[in-house]
Amino acid sequence: MNFSVDAEGRPTYELFYKGKTVIGQSHLGYQLKEENPDKATDFEYKTFAEKELIKQKADLQTGFSVVGTQSSTFDETWSPVWGEESAIRNHYNELEVTLQQQKNDRQMILRFRLFNDGLGFRYEFPSQKNLVYFIIKEEKTQFKMAGDHIAFWVAGDYDTQEYEWQQTRLSEIRGRMKDAICENSSQTPAGSTCVQTSLQMKTDDGLYINLHEAACINYATMHLNYDEATQTFTSWLTPDAKGDKGNMQTDCVSPWRTVIVGESGKDILASRITLNLNEPCKLEDTSWIKPVKYVGVWWDMITNRSHWSYTNDLYSVQLGKTDYSKCKSSGRHAANTENVKAYIDFAAKHGFDAVLVEGWNEGWEDWFGHQKDYVFDFVTPYPDFDVKAIHEYAASKGVKMIMHHETSSSVINYERHLDEAYQFMVDNGYPAVKSGYVGDIVPYGEHHYSQFMNNHYLRCVTKAADYHLMVNAHEATRPTGICRTYPNWIGNESARGTEFESFGGNPVNHTTILPFTRLIGGPMDYTPGIFQMDLSKFSPENTSKVRSTIARQLALYVTMYSPLQMAADLIENYEPFMDAFKFIEDVPVDWQKSVYLEAEPGDYITIARKDKHSEDWYVGSSVDENGHVSTLKLDFLTPGKKYKATIYADGKDASWDKNPQSYTITTKAVNSKTVLKLKSASGGGFAISIKAVD
Amino acid sequence: MNFSVDAEGRPTYELFYKGKTVIGQSHLGYQLKEENPDKATDFEYKTFAEKELIKQKADLQTGFSVVGTQSSTFDETWSPVWGEESAIRNHYNELEVTLQQQKNDRQMILRFRLFNDGLGFRYEFPSQKNLVYFIIKEEKTQFKMAGDHIAFWVAGDYDTQEYEWQQTRLSEIRGRMKDAICENSSQTPAGSTCVQTSLQMKTDDGLYINLHEAACINYATMHLNYDEATQTFTSWLTPDAKGDKGNMQTDCVSPWRTVIVGESGKDILASRITLNLNEPCKLEDTSWIKPVKYVGVWWDMITNRSHWSYTNDLYSVQLGKTDYSKCKSSGRHAANTENVKAYIDFAAKHGFDAVLVEGWNEGWEDWFGHQKDYVFDFVTPYPDFDVKAIHEYAASKGVKMIMHHETSSSVINYERHLDEAYQFMVDNGYPAVKSGYVGDIVPYGEHHYSQFMNNHYLRCVTKAADYHLMVNAHEATRPTGICRTYPNWIGNESARGTEFESFGGNPVNHTTILPFTRLIGGPMDYTPGIFQMDLSKFSPENTSKVRSTIARQLALYVTMYSPLQMAADLIENYEPFMDAFKFIEDVPVDWQKSVYLEAEPGDYITIARKDKHSEDWYVGSSVDENGHVSTLKLDFLTPGKKYKATIYADGKDASWDKNPQSYTITTKAVNSKTVLKLKSASGGGFAISIKAVD
Repeated sequence: MNFSVDAEGRPTYELFYKGKTVIGQSHLGYQLKEENPDKATDFEYKTFAEKELIKQKADLQTGFSVVGTQSSTFDETWSPVWGEESAIRNHYNELEVTLQQQKNDRQMILRFRLFNDGLGFRYEFPSQKNLVYFIIKEEKTQFKMAGDHIAFWVAGDYDTQEYEWQQTRLSEIRGRMKDAICENSSQTPAGSTCVQTSLQMKTDDGLYINLHEAACINYATMHLNYDEATQTFTSWLTPDAKGDKGNMQTDCVSPWRTVIVGESGKDILASRITLNLNEPCKLEDTSWIKPVKYVGVWWDMITNRSHWSYTNDLYSVQLGKTDYSKCKSSGRHAANTENVKAYIDFAAKHGFDAVLVEGWNEGWEDWFGHQKDYVFDFVTPYPDFDVKAIHEYAASKGVKMIMHHETSSSVINYERHLDEAYQFMVDNGYPAVKSGYVGDIVPYGEHHYSQFMNNHYLRCVTKAADYHLMVNAHEATRPTGICRTYPNWIGNESARGTEFESFGGNPVNHTTILPFTRLIGGPMDYTPGIFQMDLSKFSPENTSKVRSTIARQLALYVTMYSPLQMAADLIENYEPFMDAFKFIEDVPVDWQKSVYLEAEPGDYITIARKDKHSEDWYVGSSVDENGHVSTLKLDFLTPGKKYKATIYADGKDASWDKNPQSYTITTKAVNSKTVLKLKSASGGGFAISIKAVD
Repeated sequence: MNFSVDAEGRPTYELFYKGKTVIGQSHLGYQLKEENPDKATDFEYKTFAEKELIKQKADLQTGFSVVGTQSSTFDETWSPVWGEESAIRNHYNELEVTLQQQKNDRQMILRFRLFNDGLGFRYEFPSQKNLVYFIIKEEKTQFKMAGDHIAFWVAGDYDTQEYEWQQTRLSEIRGRMKDAICENSSQTPAGSTCVQTSLQMKTDDGLYINLHEAACINYATMHLNYDEATQTFTSWLTPDAKGDKGNMQTDCVSPWRTVIVGESGKDILASRITLNLNEPCKLEDTSWIKPVKYVGVWWDMITNRSHWSYTNDLYSVQLGKTDYSKCKSSGRHAANTENVKAYIDFAAKHGFDAVLVEGWNEGWEDWFGHQKDYVFDFVTPYPDFDVKAIHEYAASKGVKMIMHHETSSSVINYERHLDEAYQFMVDNGYPAVKSGYVGDIVPYGEHHYSQFMNNHYLRCVTKAADYHLMVNAHEATRPTGICRTYPNWIGNESARGTEFESFGGNPVNHTTILPFTRLIGGPMDYTPGIFQMDLSKFSPENTSKVRSTIARQLALYVTMYSPLQMAADLIENYEPFMDAFKFIEDVPVDWQKSVYLEAEPGDYITIARKDKHSEDWYVGSSVDENGHVSTLKLDFLTPGKKYKATIYADGKDASWDKNPQSYTITTKAVNSKTVLKLKSASGGGFAISIKAVD
């Protein structure tokens, strides 16, 4: 990485990898909001000189000179509470550059950390007289590309991440944007050439480049805006309700902007830059944080066979006034005690840790689309959901419950109830919560990925830590590695997940892209494990098909790393395939080591992981609509050790659309010298458990 | 009152008083927000018929027919916990009209209550299939005036009530509006012919008409927009951040719109319609609610002699991180333990209940103008404010403390801390809190008088009741009588108060208007009792003069009814005038009976009130720049009883601008046959204590 200041005093950096340009000469800085009072009359009366001074003060891009630099090296190996490996090396060279902006008598510090597989940098603003409070109009961090790379991108949006991935050249982003945006319950497209991070690119000369951010704390989420003429991305932050992009108070720092570079997709997935740039764990006691494998009452409603709501008898709900005991059940309320007990039994029988139940609480009859403030209270169950009985039953079976807090994006209401809601969880056997933010944010004008909302999500996590609770936040901002600092933050959805298979389907290659574009900052609660792809078989009005074979569904437990894994289907859809289900029973959710065997974004991913608590390994592969032949060298196994592999593969005639439920299960003795050749179907894959034989 | 439905099916009412038209034919109804989704593409594809249907559904103004009416009479006398009298008669004829809107298959109920001195009416929306959730685009309640009346008005604004009163004909509102708006720390003028309520008018044929609202709960505050062509006011609600005017869920009701009518100003002030239209007290135990006479550390900072902030050493504050023990006091921090103890001593010596202290807590160095979220925590004192010592000292003297919660309009932050802040009050001897909302509201786009904020203010009051705490909310919405339902709501400022005497001065006749335009809905914490009118005498840079004589300041304790009364000046400014101060010591803050002796808005007000707990009476008079001669018949005294009157009057040569501190104190034996003739100076008045001699 080279850093310099150009003739106009603009801070400039560039990045090279083995002689190849990754980032060309790119500027750094900020455009601040002009300090001018909003009242036009005041501005009219200001002299020209005063107006020029106001403009000058809003400039945090030019007129800098270097007044000091410091270099250092850092090399430490640390252990995450959970992860893809049990030890992570954090090794970088650091350059701290102190810049003085003469004309405004201000200082700004740039901190660069150069790793073997990439770069992270951030802005720092020390406490100082001439920069106390400032409002960001736009952050002006550039990333100049060295060519018209192939990119895997999602349309930039302030409220949703659930668009389908696009694969185009950078120059084609503008033309593709219209088709890249489909309907969503809350959406605000950011701009005609704006994309989300992490952005995955492939250059024509064989480099893989990934742009993202780390430690986005008390700051708005960054999108990337592309300029075709200069082949340059510029940071584009999420605005607040006034259109401002950040309220800052020195001393403060920006998030780290990250550039991961590799010669293959495997290098990208193996990078730990995002976690390494985050602060170490701040929780003294983490003994209560445990990865979770779960089942639950959810897919039943997603597929529209059942409803979240209890009754059809009400026009609307007024919590505390509406008397549900006077209403009759619609007969399609899956979150009832009997049904939940069946899931508890299933969980206990098959070694699952927990059961999630959605639709357990009063308020679902009118929860959506009314900008209702007091939409849920998070503690009052429906008449057919017996909190106490379920708590006792689950406890008697050694099973925990996972709470559901759909906030309906009524954020102030959620915060008002948060302590009571968390205490309710503690009192009733719910060590983890899945929270949701469906719909436009209230307070009006705020966006899901704004500074205000990012502070809210973190506040929910830190408060949960006080109660020893774990959080899995859906519809929240895509993560930026903060789970290192608060490992009770065990998941997010924050991308297009399995539910969209029921809303029309996900692209067949969707899960070959997600690890590059969504998992870089933290795990995803993808909720795989669907065995019945034809949803009309049990939910007659639902014509959607899940675009996957069963074998690929098994593979996702390995390829879609998460400390929180759901076997999402209905019990009855597993029952005909309990031999295949065995893989889900066996697969761990916490790892000692991960090896990326092959990884081409958009095409195929094959990963092997070693169980944290044994000598066993698990392999998973997910492929696109073309299918794939994998040649796997098992040289990651311990030499000299004997293993028994169970291979769950696509049947010979399998394919996601014609024959998704066709699979084979073969067992085989293997060792570190074994080479396996496996054929995956269209939209298929394979999953292998490799158990040490001792 | 006549009600009818016109040819277009518009609900119409008119109001007469002894044959004179008060309100001409005026329509009632709502314009709803069109249910159309925001996405333009959807609307393009809708057929013409569908578009027409959407428009039709948004119409809640036409196409009504009367399907039922019910008449009844109500006559009850109730006792307020505190008030201008100890018994209030609530006597009205009620007309309930059920209207059916055929085209939309909806029902709306109008409820009218006709009193001897006015009318109240509201809209009611029963729970029904075709009206569950609706968004108000504008309420369309008309008040057609019968002439170009003289009006006493304040410019309509969504964020401030602190403009000066204007006295013009209705037709002159538009022309005067520009001058009616001056700078304020948070302001959003509502419209070029928009005024606030309560609106006081005088007709050329001798009627006094007052328009206001009662029980504004879960609803936006109403302004009145004037149309010169039709001489009609139409309701104009306060918008939310999206520009909508109300989120409604049936079953629901609007606030009561009130028209008070009289033949003199006295009739207006004597009306109890606003309280009578509110729900009876909802608190079972009200024994802990007590009127309060207080002194405090406040005027010192308002006059800029001292500062709220502790130190000049900081650029800004980060609560929890900033270490105040490392900072030195500016030397101008009045909220220090020693000074507070002096006020406690003064309070104890002169029979005051409590001491208010502002600037006691961390955060004042950068509290204003930064839209700071975490601006105060409401529980952490400055290094020189010893909470425990002050608590014990006050308790030892039989004095309570009044808490100060300046929220800086960071409302979500305040709600986050509210329980802890209230518990802190309970633990440390603070039975009442003065809250403030200075600056633009956060969440952005909300306004001080929006539905969201009205819900917030009420939430603070109901939660305070749980803790047995009383609330006095400054910068909050002007009250609408809800203090009947929650009598721990003991005050608001919500108009231009005494502090503006230090910010340039109030109009000399300001307090002769306020009872008509501000006190109709509830008491005002006007904080009178200023004895040193020349502020430069103790705060050299402050060139403001308080536009009042001392005698008028004494009178305000009677004419500006409030259960919460402050002797606002510095102790040292009272010390030269302890004979005059005696009136403030003596005057009660709770009354058995009130008699309005003379009242001409803008000119003079003279009121007599009987102490709730004795046979004593107190009289106060406040007059405008012309001075006034009052002829008072003391026939409100008990016949046959003997009294001793102490008359605090303007000196012969007194005037607000040249000789404000000139007063005389005379004693006199009086009885129910006595007639007193008293001359008030320009900007002066008089105060009389009439103590029973027994």
